Amino acid sequence: MRYELYYWPTIQGRGEFVRLALEEAGADYIDVARRPGKRGVPAMTRLMDDKRSKRPPYAPPFVKAGKLVIAQTANILLYLGPRLGLAPRDEAGRLWAHQLQLTISDLVVEIHDTHHPVTTYLYYEEQRPAAKRRTADFWRYRVPKILGYFERVLARSSGPHVLGRRLCYVDLSLFQIIEGLRYAFPRRMKRFEKKVPGLVALHDRVAKRPRIAAYLASKRRLPFSQWGIYRYFKELD
Amino acid sequence: MRYELYYWPTIQGRGEFVRLALEEAGADYIDVARRPGKRGVPAMTRLMDDKRSKRPPYAPPFVKAGKLVIAQTANILLYLGPRLGLAPRDEAGRLWAHQLQLTISDLVVEIHDTHHPVTTYLYYEEQRPAAKRRTADFWRYRVPKILGYFERVLARSSGPHVLGRRLCYVDLSLFQIIEGLRYAFPRRMKRFEKKVPGLVALHDRVAKRPRIAAYLASKRRLPFSQWGIYRYFKELD
Repeated sequence: MRYELYYWPTIQGRGEFVRLALEEAGADYIDVARRPGKRGVPAMTRLMDDKRSKRPPYAPPFVKAGKLVIAQTANILLYLGPRLGLAPRDEAGRLWAHQLQLTISDLVVEIHDTHHPVTTYLYYEEQRPAAKRRTADFWRYRVPKILGYFERVLARSSGPHVLGRRLCYVDLSLFQIIEGLRYAFPRRMKRFEKKVPGLVALHDRVAKRPRIAAYLASKRRLPFSQWGIYRYFKELD
Repeated sequence: MRYELYYWPTIQGRGEFVRLALEEAGADYIDVARRPGKRGVPAMTRLMDDKRSKRPPYAPPFVKAGKLVIAQTANILLYLGPRLGLAPRDEAGRLWAHQLQLTISDLVVEIHDTHHPVTTYLYYEEQRPAAKRRTADFWRYRVPKILGYFERVLARSSGPHVLGRRLCYVDLSLFQIIEGLRYAFPRRMKRFEKKVPGLVALHDRVAKRPRIAAYLASKRRLPFSQWGIYRYFKELD
């Protein structure tokens, strides 16, 4: 099966959680919107705006697998997980992995909102005081609570991954969260990492997997930027 | 199967999406935290804090079904849907319903953030100007975009429900969204409803279903309040 991934071509964003899974599995996939010309972004918007589609996606990312079009990051991973060997096959295991992924989705919104708390329709510079307050609370309350939860889950698994012996797409997503927080908040993250040694070890283990290491070193891995979920502002760090 | 629902006993909140599904199906369930004394909220926190649990929920709501504990609202509905006759049994249909439910989850966060944009660690009164700005953008851009999407999905289904002939848990959740927006923004919503006649008709159809009507008239249905997702502030409406 050749999968088609549809996502904005210039940012890691939510699409990156899917890219990491496809890359780790060595899956046959096309990153559609990164193709040049009309076969790129216009192909993506055409599919989204297709008036004959009975099941249109609300927004990227979405994946086309044969005739099936699946949107919502966590839903895509729910579908791909067992097929890529990155999730358990039993229902209880799949629900548990998905539950963790949905908590990561919630965290992603909170990370984004640190720099745009008031509204996404104003520039960061127009909401800087609110962003400072939100970021302070994010690091004081939310990061310890949410990453502390994942640290506990990891400690209670039979290790070394969140679900136990085998790697799962949730591990890849936690790697990406740590990468993103390091980019956006290098100083704060450096201090905080002492509190979640298990997650840091998991991050390092993921980074060393041959396919992930090759992907990270390739041009397929887009750089972090000031347009994604994670943005660096000195005064927020 | 007797299901156990665990959610805060004084608000509709995210638990309400699950309650509506259980009620429509006439399912055998206990709303655990609403029981008196130690069998109520303490039973919920005990389960959350249980150090022997290998799969602890991050937050309510969660549902216990035999030995399985499932958290995250949309994940609970993914599990319950086919079992309660409120979702298709085929994989493509289940993924589509779940995809829509995840977009509703995203909307719920946006609704909540209208009154608490800067941080949940300040009172509304301490962030009123930001709330006004966020609410203005919410009604100008977000509601038309998101509810417009659901209106389109409904129009393209073979009707009268979002998935076609049969009712699905997504219909119940859309009913709840409309109820909540009417509570929090009665004037704005009254004007807006003209733009989504299909959703309003769906809402009315759901409200008239015998089990839903009986539930809404019962004490099991908690009233809207100033502590939930939807809050009424005259100056935001």
